[in-house]
Amino acid sequence: MIQKMAEEARLVSRQLSLMTTDQKNLALQSMAKALRKHLVKIQKANEKDVLTAKEKALSDAFLDRLQLNPNRIEAIAKGLEAIAELPDPIGTILTTFDRPNGLEINRVRVPIGVIGVIFESRPNVTADAAALCLKAGNAVILRGGSESFHSCSAIMAALQSGLEDSNFPKTAIQMLPTSDRAEVSEMLKMDKYIDVIIPRGGPKLIEQIVAESRIPLFKHLAGLCHTYIHKAADKDMAKKIVLNAKMRRTGICGATETLLIDESIADSHLPMILDELIRKGCEIRGDEKVIALDSRVKPCLDYDTEFLAAIIAVKIVKDLNEAIKHIAEHGTQHTDAIVTEDAAAAERFFKEIDSAIVMHNTSTQFADGGEFGMGAEIGIATGKLHARGPVGVEQLTTFKYLVKGQGQVRN
Amino acid sequence: MIQKMAEEARLVSRQLSLMTTDQKNLALQSMAKALRKHLVKIQKANEKDVLTAKEKALSDAFLDRLQLNPNRIEAIAKGLEAIAELPDPIGTILTTFDRPNGLEINRVRVPIGVIGVIFESRPNVTADAAALCLKAGNAVILRGGSESFHSCSAIMAALQSGLEDSNFPKTAIQMLPTSDRAEVSEMLKMDKYIDVIIPRGGPKLIEQIVAESRIPLFKHLAGLCHTYIHKAADKDMAKKIVLNAKMRRTGICGATETLLIDESIADSHLPMILDELIRKGCEIRGDEKVIALDSRVKPCLDYDTEFLAAIIAVKIVKDLNEAIKHIAEHGTQHTDAIVTEDAAAAERFFKEIDSAIVMHNTSTQFADGGEFGMGAEIGIATGKLHARGPVGVEQLTTFKYLVKGQGQVRN
Repeated sequence: MIQKMAEEARLVSRQLSLMTTDQKNLALQSMAKALRKHLVKIQKANEKDVLTAKEKALSDAFLDRLQLNPNRIEAIAKGLEAIAELPDPIGTILTTFDRPNGLEINRVRVPIGVIGVIFESRPNVTADAAALCLKAGNAVILRGGSESFHSCSAIMAALQSGLEDSNFPKTAIQMLPTSDRAEVSEMLKMDKYIDVIIPRGGPKLIEQIVAESRIPLFKHLAGLCHTYIHKAADKDMAKKIVLNAKMRRTGICGATETLLIDESIADSHLPMILDELIRKGCEIRGDEKVIALDSRVKPCLDYDTEFLAAIIAVKIVKDLNEAIKHIAEHGTQHTDAIVTEDAAAAERFFKEIDSAIVMHNTSTQFADGGEFGMGAEIGIATGKLHARGPVGVEQLTTFKYLVKGQGQVRN
Repeated sequence: MIQKMAEEARLVSRQLSLMTTDQKNLALQSMAKALRKHLVKIQKANEKDVLTAKEKALSDAFLDRLQLNPNRIEAIAKGLEAIAELPDPIGTILTTFDRPNGLEINRVRVPIGVIGVIFESRPNVTADAAALCLKAGNAVILRGGSESFHSCSAIMAALQSGLEDSNFPKTAIQMLPTSDRAEVSEMLKMDKYIDVIIPRGGPKLIEQIVAESRIPLFKHLAGLCHTYIHKAADKDMAKKIVLNAKMRRTGICGATETLLIDESIADSHLPMILDELIRKGCEIRGDEKVIALDSRVKPCLDYDTEFLAAIIAVKIVKDLNEAIKHIAEHGTQHTDAIVTEDAAAAERFFKEIDSAIVMHNTSTQFADGGEFGMGAEIGIATGKLHARGPVGVEQLTTFKYLVKGQGQVRN
C-alpha cells in the first residue's frame, strides 16, 4: 500500500516537474478555494480530534495547536495564496560555464522529486507543507500526528478536490491512509521513490526517524539558541534583545534558551536584566555566581535543555573564548547571537560559531523564513547539507547540469 | 579508537575553518614537496601491496590501478599543486537579503566540517581526496581499500609530514589505522562527529555503506549512461559521438553503456555505427531487431548492467517518448545524451531526463569535474541533495547565515 503510494508519487513527480508556473499557481489558488468550501467538513472533523484529545486529557497548549476555527482555516487558505505569489524557483540558471571547446554548461534549478513530510499535531502543516512542495514542483507524501488524523484527512480531501478543480494531478499530494505507526516505518524504507524526508516534531520523533530512515533527512534537531552579552555590549540594547529573544514567544525554535554574559559586566548588567525577565514571568536558572546576584534564581542542572517555555538558563563566562566554547559544546547549530559594540568580537563570533544562523545585535527570534524574506517555510534545518536554516520553496529544489554541444568529443 | 579519531577531526575542523587561503595553499604545496621526498618509501610500500595482489592473482586491470612508479607519484604531487591553484570558495557571500527592518542577512560559504572518504584500490585517491577536503577547510578521515593499505599509509605519512613542515595541524588528514573492515562500520556510526561520507568504489561497497551509514552520503551509484540517437540526428555526428562516448575510455563512469536509436533511422544509421564499434573491438548486445541488422550482435539479457568494458547494449526505440521512458526505468541519473538537430526534441530531453548531467550533441565522456572547469573532483554524485554531478572543492562546502542588526527585536 505505502509502496504503491510512493511509486505513484515518483510517477507523478515527473509530470509536476514539467508544470508551468501558472499551472502550479492556479492549483494553489484552487486549493485555497476548496479549503473555504470545505470549511464545515473540516471543522466537524477537527471536533472529533479535539474531543479525543480532551478525553486523553492532553495539555491546553496541545489543544490550542490542534483546534481549528473559521479564522484559522481562512488563515491556512490565505497561506496557500501567499505561496502562489512567491517567485517560482524552477528553471532558474544558477551558473553557466562556457568551456574553451565550445561546450555550454548550465546549472539549472529543478524540483527534488518526491518529498515526505512527517509532522506532529498542528493540522495546518498539511496545507503549508503540501503547498510549498507543490510550488517547487515536487510530489509530497504527508503523515500527520495521530491526534490530528481526522483534521488532516479533511484538509487533505479539500486540497485534493482543489487539485481536481484545476485539472492538476490529484496524487501530487498524498497522505498515509491510517494513523498506524507502522506506516511511517514502511515509508522510511522507500528510498527508491522518496528523495528526502522532512520531519517536524519533538526530539523523540526526530530520533526515531534518524534511526530508521534510509532516506536523507532535512532534520531539525532542537533549537537550543544562545544570546551572549559580550563585555562591550550596549546595556540597554542587551536588555531589550534578551527580553525579546526569550519572551516574545517562548515556544518557537528560535527562542533563546541560554543567556551567556561576560563576568566583567555581570555585576553591572545582569541584575537589571534578570529583574526584568522575572517581572515578565520568566524563571531563571543559573550557577552559583548567578544565584549570588539574585536570590530568586534557581540552580541550573544542565545547559542542554530546550525549555520552549518561560525559563532561561544563565551562565557567567570569562570571555568570548569561553562563550564560543560553551556554544560549541551545548548548542544545536540552530541560531546564536552576540550583543556587542566591538566589531572585532562580532567578527570572531560570526567566524567561529558553527550554526545555521549567527546573529549580531539582534534577537534570535528573527530565525524564521518569513523574517528572512523567503516567504513561508517548512522549518529550520540544523543539518549542514543541502538545506541549512529556513527551508522555503528554494530549499525544496535541486539542480541539474545541461550541456549543449555541436558534436564535441573528448580527447 | 575510531571515536577518538572522529572527535579529534571535529576539534581540528574548527581550526581549519579559520585558516586563510595562503595557509591552506602553503600546506598543499608542502604536501606535494613531502610526497616527492618520500618517493622511495612510497614505492617500497607499494611493492608490498603489488606483491600481495599478484599472489592473490588479482586482475591486470587491478594491478595497473594499484601500481605506483615515479611518474605516477610526480603526477599526484602535481595534482596537489593544481588544487592549491584553485580559487578558495570559503567566505564567498552567496546571497544578501537587506530586510525592511534594517537587518542585513548574508549567506556565506563555510566548510562542511568533517568528511569521511571510503575508497577502493587506487592509492592516489589518498592524496587527491585529502587535498580537496583541505582546500575547502574540512578535516578528513580516509579509508582506502585493504589491497592498497601499505601504499596509502606511506602516502599518508608523506602528507602528514608535509603538514607538519608548514605548521598545519597534522590531524587535518587522518586515516583509519588498520585494514580491518570493522573499522568502517565503526566509522559509519560517528554521525556526531562526521558530517558526510563519500564512498568511492564498486556497487557492493556502496550498497554496504548505504545500508550501514547513519551519516549522510554523497553517493555515486552506477554510471549507466545512455546516448540516444534521435531521428533528426546528423549521421556523422552521431557516429563520432557514440564511438567516443563508448570507446574513448571504457572504464570511467561517464562512458556510455546503452545506445538508443529511433526505429525510423535504425536501418540507415545503425549498421555503419555498429560496424565501426566492432572494428574498434566493441562487443554489441541487442534485441532481436538489432541482431537482424548485424549477425555479430549478441543477445542483450538486460539493460541494467554497467559494463565498464568494451561492450555496449543497443536498443531500437519507437521515438523520443520511449527513449525518455527507457532512461527513466534503466538509468542511474548520472549522465545521458541526445544527438539531434531538432531543437524542440533536445529541449524536451533536457526537461524530462532527471539526471545530474543531461547532454545535447556531445559525448557522455565529458561528465567530469575537470571538463566542467571545476578543477579536480572527488567523484560524480548521483544523489539529488547538496552535491549533484561532479564533486569538486565547492561541493565540499556548506553555508551559514550571518545576520547583522543594530538592536532590532521582533514584533
